[in-house]
Amino acid sequence: MPSSSTTEAQGAAPLPVNAAPLAVSIGDPAGIAPEVIAQAWAEREAHALAPFFAVGGAGVLVRAAASRGIELPVVQISSPAEAREAFASALPVLGEEDCTQTFGEPDAQGARLALHSLTRATRLALSGEAGAVVTGPIAKARLAEVGFTQPGQTEFLADACELAHDDAVMMLAGPSLRTVPLTVHEPLAVVPGLVTGALIEHKAHVIARALARDFGLPEARIAITGLNPHSGEDGRMGSEDRDVIAPAIARLAAQGLAVTGPHPADALFAAHERTKFDVALCMYHDQALIPIKTLDFDQGVNVTLGLPIVRTSPDHGTAFAIAGKGLASAGAMIAALRMAGECAQRRAMSVPA
Amino acid sequence: MPSSSTTEAQGAAPLPVNAAPLAVSIGDPAGIAPEVIAQAWAEREAHALAPFFAVGGAGVLVRAAASRGIELPVVQISSPAEAREAFASALPVLGEEDCTQTFGEPDAQGARLALHSLTRATRLALSGEAGAVVTGPIAKARLAEVGFTQPGQTEFLADACELAHDDAVMMLAGPSLRTVPLTVHEPLAVVPGLVTGALIEHKAHVIARALARDFGLPEARIAITGLNPHSGEDGRMGSEDRDVIAPAIARLAAQGLAVTGPHPADALFAAHERTKFDVALCMYHDQALIPIKTLDFDQGVNVTLGLPIVRTSPDHGTAFAIAGKGLASAGAMIAALRMAGECAQRRAMSVPA
Repeated sequence: MPSSSTTEAQGAAPLPVNAAPLAVSIGDPAGIAPEVIAQAWAEREAHALAPFFAVGGAGVLVRAAASRGIELPVVQISSPAEAREAFASALPVLGEEDCTQTFGEPDAQGARLALHSLTRATRLALSGEAGAVVTGPIAKARLAEVGFTQPGQTEFLADACELAHDDAVMMLAGPSLRTVPLTVHEPLAVVPGLVTGALIEHKAHVIARALARDFGLPEARIAITGLNPHSGEDGRMGSEDRDVIAPAIARLAAQGLAVTGPHPADALFAAHERTKFDVALCMYHDQALIPIKTLDFDQGVNVTLGLPIVRTSPDHGTAFAIAGKGLASAGAMIAALRMAGECAQRRAMSVPA
Repeated sequence: MPSSSTTEAQGAAPLPVNAAPLAVSIGDPAGIAPEVIAQAWAEREAHALAPFFAVGGAGVLVRAAASRGIELPVVQISSPAEAREAFASALPVLGEEDCTQTFGEPDAQGARLALHSLTRATRLALSGEAGAVVTGPIAKARLAEVGFTQPGQTEFLADACELAHDDAVMMLAGPSLRTVPLTVHEPLAVVPGLVTGALIEHKAHVIARALARDFGLPEARIAITGLNPHSGEDGRMGSEDRDVIAPAIARLAAQGLAVTGPHPADALFAAHERTKFDVALCMYHDQALIPIKTLDFDQGVNVTLGLPIVRTSPDHGTAFAIAGKGLASAGAMIAALRMAGECAQRRAMSVPA
């Protein structure tokens, strides 16, 4: 079956093109990823999800589905191209790799399957056979024991795409807000030293390009926060806002980006402020993640900007404590699949079929 | 007229006691404080506000009211005890001090009036003639030029009450959430060094006592955040959570406080988590203020815990840019007046009339 449908050109209208199916890595088998993938497939019509397939773990997925009362039909496929047709009546699974799982008790075989699934799903996106990769959450410490060398999946993706880690930019996106942390998994004490004009400029450009390409926002309004309380009040509470961040914003504006700031972070995410920007570039982890998780906890998507491929992920972890209990919300996985489908579709439409 | 009404004792039921009227300092005359005070008086019945009076600034208040289309009746009173009866038909104003104002253009005479109003309102609360002090926002830099020596009103209140600044604890409270920043107006770079076990213990005890006394929460559940992303992941992203914060929490629990943590701050303020605690003790300014301003921007109240008097304030600044334009929301001032009235009433009920 075709991975894209084409029609005859009609005047100058662009050809409708379907993106390739989305590859989903199953995450840690002992966590909630398999069950929310199954739930998302069960709700595929209600949410108009683009066709997707899981990489490996057919048995893992069926058992996870059963734990929340879903009788999940799966169908083995031998290539991504088979996913589109199969998706209507069953969850397509590519590859025979599988294992058993005990919910809440991650083990080495599960970590190996998770790493295999992530690796192959990424390769399929890179080859173009998959329109995007949607990654289920993993337990980093467990995966490190079986050969995963990166601090997180975002850095894994950067390596797989042969990019520097700073080129792969994590954005959190929900119905209310999009935020990007300039620095991510760093101790707070080292954050001020990592906030440089060069890093702000680099990430702002990655954001601007990605929002234009994948989100249909050719002139994205980027609000940049200060580091200190009240953005330092002109140096009275820390000098970085005045001496580092403000000059970087001025340079970005001179380069034509629609940037504003430095904005005091505490007031930036109020309802009447959120309408004034498309994305907030924040200086550190909690500054970016508190507002999005406070507003959009069950619908937050982690998107990696700057990659040659589309990658999204639900913005939650393995949640071992509730895995297999029917408690996990599939909202974020569904949102991640929707966003991946939309971004993949934009890319498919932007190049000739 | 009496500042409290008493009835004959009926069995063992506590006597209903009315707290003394609330003293409101008018804030900077060029900012939005006077207009939101006027607006609050105009809405006194809809919000069931306890009687309050302004200290000084009758003309300032009338002009500010007029700027948003309110014809404000004011009545000069010579003692707080006169406020209760006068409040029904006019905004009581204590004292003849006044000045002119140009909205958005703070000047020295306005700063002097603001400082006078704050000083006298505080004294009236300390003497018991006022049930609480509700402070309008000031421009600290302007007040510093006329003799205000503290970094903010909270520290001014601490000094007026002859307390150490650490004994006056700022809490932000809205309909959704209460938070306390452990450190407040400090550069982010110095925050990690200021996070000590002694400070966490001290502020947690101030919080527990104040929530019991003024908020009717005798065993307040206090959620304490970590400093680093994910609370440091057992030391992998900063050691303070494991080495400083967790031991302090353990000591507080051993002392009988209902404390939990260290909680990763990004997930703590989601709707399903907020029900699990009464107040969050956060490590720094933005960690505490982002969630409350994101959720409750127009209704946030700044309460000072640990004082011998009740003090609240709307959680916004002078907003010179919108003063006199009819744009400022009175929601936070109304919420501050409501909270002050409730806290004052609890104190009045807890001691014999």
